[in-house]
Amino acid sequence: MLDYVPSFTQLVSELNKLPGIGPKTAQRLAYYILNSPEQYSQGLSKAMHEMHLKVRKCEQCFALTENDNLCHFCEDTKRNDSLLCIVEQPSDISRLEFSGAFRGRYHVLHGVISPLDGVGPEDLTTQALIHRIDLSLKTEETAIKEVILALDADLEGDTTVLYLAKILKERGIKISRIAHGIPIGGDIDYVDHRTLGRALENRVDV
Amino acid sequence: MLDYVPSFTQLVSELNKLPGIGPKTAQRLAYYILNSPEQYSQGLSKAMHEMHLKVRKCEQCFALTENDNLCHFCEDTKRNDSLLCIVEQPSDISRLEFSGAFRGRYHVLHGVISPLDGVGPEDLTTQALIHRIDLSLKTEETAIKEVILALDADLEGDTTVLYLAKILKERGIKISRIAHGIPIGGDIDYVDHRTLGRALENRVDV
Repeated sequence: MLDYVPSFTQLVSELNKLPGIGPKTAQRLAYYILNSPEQYSQGLSKAMHEMHLKVRKCEQCFALTENDNLCHFCEDTKRNDSLLCIVEQPSDISRLEFSGAFRGRYHVLHGVISPLDGVGPEDLTTQALIHRIDLSLKTEETAIKEVILALDADLEGDTTVLYLAKILKERGIKISRIAHGIPIGGDIDYVDHRTLGRALENRVDV
Repeated sequence: MLDYVPSFTQLVSELNKLPGIGPKTAQRLAYYILNSPEQYSQGLSKAMHEMHLKVRKCEQCFALTENDNLCHFCEDTKRNDSLLCIVEQPSDISRLEFSGAFRGRYHVLHGVISPLDGVGPEDLTTQALIHRIDLSLKTEETAIKEVILALDADLEGDTTVLYLAKILKERGIKISRIAHGIPIGGDIDYVDHRTLGRALENRVDV
């Protein structure tokens, strides 16, 4: 489409590379950018450049940060060192923080074990996690005593939980997994059978 | 979210300005850009810059072009000068071209009359259209004899059709509108009642 305007077609093809953006959406976005003042595309270009320049992964927990060594969460002295929450993506941290229910440390795996996609433990930050835990266990003061696995309840999440549980149990660390069940405000009528099964299995005493 | 990584948040907010891109999608796109090699964002930035630099509107028909004066369609000497197709957006031209059913000239309105959104005929390219038609009528050779209105069948499209029909009829030009009805391969069961009504109204002799 619009092959007679090569620079427009080029922008459409670049936008089309983004996840979830098909050719029609890409064209709509390209029209929007064309009809916006050039300040918009300059702002977007600048934001992408700055992000690549500034954002790095924390050396300890692999969360995103603009700090030189440790991130905001690893530097925070008010957090509980004995509690570690393992998440898949950096964005999961913001959701957990927003819940206000956790004040320990984090560790970002940057993925989950997925044999079908060729992702093994060596492609994640598991080696660094084991090293971090072993280091913490050297003194009573810094020891990680409980690990919470905040991973999705799908096949890949379950595989990763099994893998990590084995490693952590060997070190005598208490392991838990966030509860899966019916969402607050959710209706039993509209919950799928696997979620309902898990909610029954993990029922809590009243 | 992720307020502790300001450059990331900044990119999310820029992406969030795009039409149809909400905060969650913007975050997903920002992660994709972060995890892609910097060549991707450089390519996207370059494509936006080049488009703003090169793409302009044709002086005659207001289609997008990279030419200095007239676009690809206006310059084409093999097209029928007596037939003019009026469309809302430049992208409509590519769809019509792809159908292969039209070999006349085009005119892009760059919108439709929409009193609710405060868009009147003066915000579109109607003045230039009237001027173009009047100029063409000066000699028999260049005269536009039929105008096809390829506008959507919604309230705004209908309003625009009425407005243009009045102007064109005053000049004795034949006016038609593209047919609205059941799509080829479509099923009567799944067509909405307004489309079906229109299809009955505009039935054709067999």
